Amino acid sequence: MNFLTRTTRHIHTAFLSPQHVAEIVQTRGLANIFAGMVEAMRADFLRWSEFDKTARVASHSANGVIELMPIADAKTYTFKYVNGHPGNTLRGLSTVMAFGVLADVDTGTPLLVSELTLTTALRTAATSVMAAQALARPDSRVMALIGNGSQSEFQALAFHYLMGIEELRLYDIDEAATAKLMRNLAGTTLRLVKCSSAADAARGADIITTVTADKTQATIITPGMVTPGMHINGVGGDCPGKTELHADVLRMGPVFVEYAPQSRVEGDVQQMPADFPVTELWQVLNGTADGRCSAEQVTVFDSVGFALEDYSALRFMREQSIALGIGEPLPLIPALADPKDLFSALGTPVIATPQQTPQARKNHPA
Amino acid sequence: MNFLTRTTRHIHTAFLSPQHVAEIVQTRGLANIFAGMVEAMRADFLRWSEFDKTARVASHSANGVIELMPIADAKTYTFKYVNGHPGNTLRGLSTVMAFGVLADVDTGTPLLVSELTLTTALRTAATSVMAAQALARPDSRVMALIGNGSQSEFQALAFHYLMGIEELRLYDIDEAATAKLMRNLAGTTLRLVKCSSAADAARGADIITTVTADKTQATIITPGMVTPGMHINGVGGDCPGKTELHADVLRMGPVFVEYAPQSRVEGDVQQMPADFPVTELWQVLNGTADGRCSAEQVTVFDSVGFALEDYSALRFMREQSIALGIGEPLPLIPALADPKDLFSALGTPVIATPQQTPQARKNHPA
Repeated sequence: MNFLTRTTRHIHTAFLSPQHVAEIVQTRGLANIFAGMVEAMRADFLRWSEFDKTARVASHSANGVIELMPIADAKTYTFKYVNGHPGNTLRGLSTVMAFGVLADVDTGTPLLVSELTLTTALRTAATSVMAAQALARPDSRVMALIGNGSQSEFQALAFHYLMGIEELRLYDIDEAATAKLMRNLAGTTLRLVKCSSAADAARGADIITTVTADKTQATIITPGMVTPGMHINGVGGDCPGKTELHADVLRMGPVFVEYAPQSRVEGDVQQMPADFPVTELWQVLNGTADGRCSAEQVTVFDSVGFALEDYSALRFMREQSIALGIGEPLPLIPALADPKDLFSALGTPVIATPQQTPQARKNHPA
Repeated sequence: MNFLTRTTRHIHTAFLSPQHVAEIVQTRGLANIFAGMVEAMRADFLRWSEFDKTARVASHSANGVIELMPIADAKTYTFKYVNGHPGNTLRGLSTVMAFGVLADVDTGTPLLVSELTLTTALRTAATSVMAAQALARPDSRVMALIGNGSQSEFQALAFHYLMGIEELRLYDIDEAATAKLMRNLAGTTLRLVKCSSAADAARGADIITTVTADKTQATIITPGMVTPGMHINGVGGDCPGKTELHADVLRMGPVFVEYAPQSRVEGDVQQMPADFPVTELWQVLNGTADGRCSAEQVTVFDSVGFALEDYSALRFMREQSIALGIGEPLPLIPALADPKDLFSALGTPVIATPQQTPQARKNHPA
């Protein structure tokens, strides 16, 4: 319809598909992407008070949850749409699918619509590493990776590239998931050790990372698996009714969270009383709270995923896409010659005489 | 990059641009679109209790507001992103820009991403008509239209086609806006009367529609302008600090709202005490509450725009787009051969040896 092509212009909104994001990662290199994302996120966590923060808005249903995660500073607004449907894999769908938007606060213009399925996996691993850099022993070399699903390679490689992890001790109730993980990491220098249980995986580990997906009150990590000096990176316990750590594990050392009001509802600390002490990670990063105090201490990062991490990931990916010229325009918002004349964006032939429609005739007895 | 094209498949998400929506409106005819939208919305309002409703999530800034409006029933989830920036017109941008998403509750899959700038204007007018069909005198023929900006043609034509309005009495502080409105409606059989003030416009009107955009506590309609039997369709008073009706106008007759918890914060009733009586429109539609009781009564619809209206608009537009084959696919979510293997969507050349990156080298003293 050429007459439309002639009349409808659009505000410039950029679009990044999963393919565009893959192209960015391949061009920059995965290690650089992780490093850049950690850097972007740390910079944003250090200006924590500048953000208008709110717990995510969740819509729960029988099979899962759909959430919106908005956040803004004075200049940039972002939100993420993300679902969590553990049964999806049985239908050939991902448990977690996501996309997000970055907008200009001054005018409300959406500047970027981006896939966030891949990007969330990248930023979750980047968050885990940012926390571990502050909380784990710097000489950590062995990591237990319990839960070998979609997120596992991202955790594995982020810790390999940025924390010096050399050995992964792998366990998943689904052996095929572990086999897939080992296949995907075959090209790395990581030593991959397949273990027979979570307890077996934890044996000798400096860091335990849990990324399981069951939407249940599970007890993946019990106190008996935890030895002095360990850092526990709990990623999978992230919504009401979904936990991975035994309550006594949370009592073994200081517990760090992203945003306490959200974590007390969604994190492993949902099991604890409202006054159970937790420290927000940004306070450790800016030096106003202690992180790890000794080589023997057990530290726990009870990660649920917070909107600020998506903000950082979106602005970082936008910067990459602009620098590399990767992405495409999305005609989402009409650009109007006269901003008060929205009607003309419908095109001129839109007005019919009332007699042309039955509904109109009913109200216009001619 | 052909290797990406070969490996990245996507979940089917449909996309509707403003041009697609214009094409749907032109194909169906504007009167039929209004009629279909009112019908879809009425059907959804009649099953009000089936929806998981929440007040919108607003992020306020110096120049305006960005809002997310989610809602869901057992089958379908929708949300709208919408801004309100009155100063935008000075920059050549629209005051209100919007888009939205419709998703499958069972799996969380986003099925449709759609422009909602045009569609919001259509659904707002459809909502006004749906309310007026229940609340205004059926013999209403003259409507005052105060505020002649982006929304005004939509209000004018919806009331013309579906309520039998034959004469419009127009007023805007910006004469150019009125001129634009008169130009855009020149092809209709509506009698267009340019008035010198809001009071002049109200004279002899059966219905007063206010759609002004100033983000201030304005008093567009005062009791002296209101005569017995009038219906007041207050559309522009829709966020905290933004009102159009004098408090005494709200005391002249029963006040109807979409969703009381939201309207008491955002609507003209924000001026009234918390126990000021309001009736939710769905109760009038399903017969459990009175609408207009006499030809002399003054009725007020204090409209702020509610998520359910966007739900109805999105599902209606999706039905139209499928029936007409209008729209295009948006590669938003990666489709994975193995849903636990997200990593492979990054493409195979993604793993670098640690030595390739400076960040990695730092942590891997070889």
